[in-house]
Amino acid sequence: MSNIVFIATSIDGYIADKDGGIDWLHSIPNPEGADMGFVAHFERIDALVMGRNTLDMVLSLDIEWPYSKPVFVLSNSMTSIPKDYEDKVFLVKGPLKDILKDLKGRGYENLYIDGGITIQNFLKEDLIDEMVITTIPVLLGGGSPLFGELIGPLNFKHVKTQRYADAIVQNFFVRDRM
Amino acid sequence: MSNIVFIATSIDGYIADKDGGIDWLHSIPNPEGADMGFVAHFERIDALVMGRNTLDMVLSLDIEWPYSKPVFVLSNSMTSIPKDYEDKVFLVKGPLKDILKDLKGRGYENLYIDGGITIQNFLKEDLIDEMVITTIPVLLGGGSPLFGELIGPLNFKHVKTQRYADAIVQNFFVRDRM
Repeated sequence: MSNIVFIATSIDGYIADKDGGIDWLHSIPNPEGADMGFVAHFERIDALVMGRNTLDMVLSLDIEWPYSKPVFVLSNSMTSIPKDYEDKVFLVKGPLKDILKDLKGRGYENLYIDGGITIQNFLKEDLIDEMVITTIPVLLGGGSPLFGELIGPLNFKHVKTQRYADAIVQNFFVRDRM
Repeated sequence: MSNIVFIATSIDGYIADKDGGIDWLHSIPNPEGADMGFVAHFERIDALVMGRNTLDMVLSLDIEWPYSKPVFVLSNSMTSIPKDYEDKVFLVKGPLKDILKDLKGRGYENLYIDGGITIQNFLKEDLIDEMVITTIPVLLGGGSPLFGELIGPLNFKHVKTQRYADAIVQNFFVRDRM
């Protein structure tokens, strides 16, 4: 049972630029179409958990719905699911620990935790077990940060590094609660 | 002629914790005493450039003076060099580009740029050519950040990754000005 982050950042730790844009994520040529571990990650997980901002961002992209697994959206302000997504997206509310207990009880054991604010909220309660962080070799100098304030430090183990497209480095961390 | 950063950060990009401490840098057991590339880096450089905060931090450590090469300290407020360091530490003032022109003209071609504020000031003027960033597998959740605001993005090339002590990952980046 793991809560897993799989996300790309700039060298300076931003997940979106100053204008909220993510074009810089695709600035590196990827002629062989490497999936950079995403397919293996997605096969492992049972569901996604994201915030409303991330859902809105995905819905705003002019692409087919990209997720073949249930998406649980954390929102205290949303009251309904956008039309045509009622069988794909599910609203969840309340304390994170209660939500997780409920989801895990329903068989959603490995969760893909996505979106900066959601990841930060999980980390504040020490609820992240694994992080796969893909670093794009750019300094953005501002934008939406991946990480936020914590009450105290959280130690991780560094598991491995992968390099893609001769440019992008991906690091695997596992929470070390010893 | 390169201006080189060689520094360790937490996963969330801090170079000192909330109390200004750096004990967490040494939290990873290093039984074989790996120098993590520092000796090779130091051999390459001709001099160091740092800010007053970094100088004060080094002077406050209860250790022998660690640098066998000249240290140029950027400070507009310092008026003299601490006693007994007059042949090791040299005060420089003025615009960074003028300082660099002067230093390079005197044969100091490869410079080790150290300290968060100094690195940020160099990056603001796009004066960093290489960065060797060693990531300690901890989220500090606050402290002194390595990176700061930039006017616009700066692209880098990812050159290589090294892993030390089964825990620490070191990434080499070179500025891509194309």
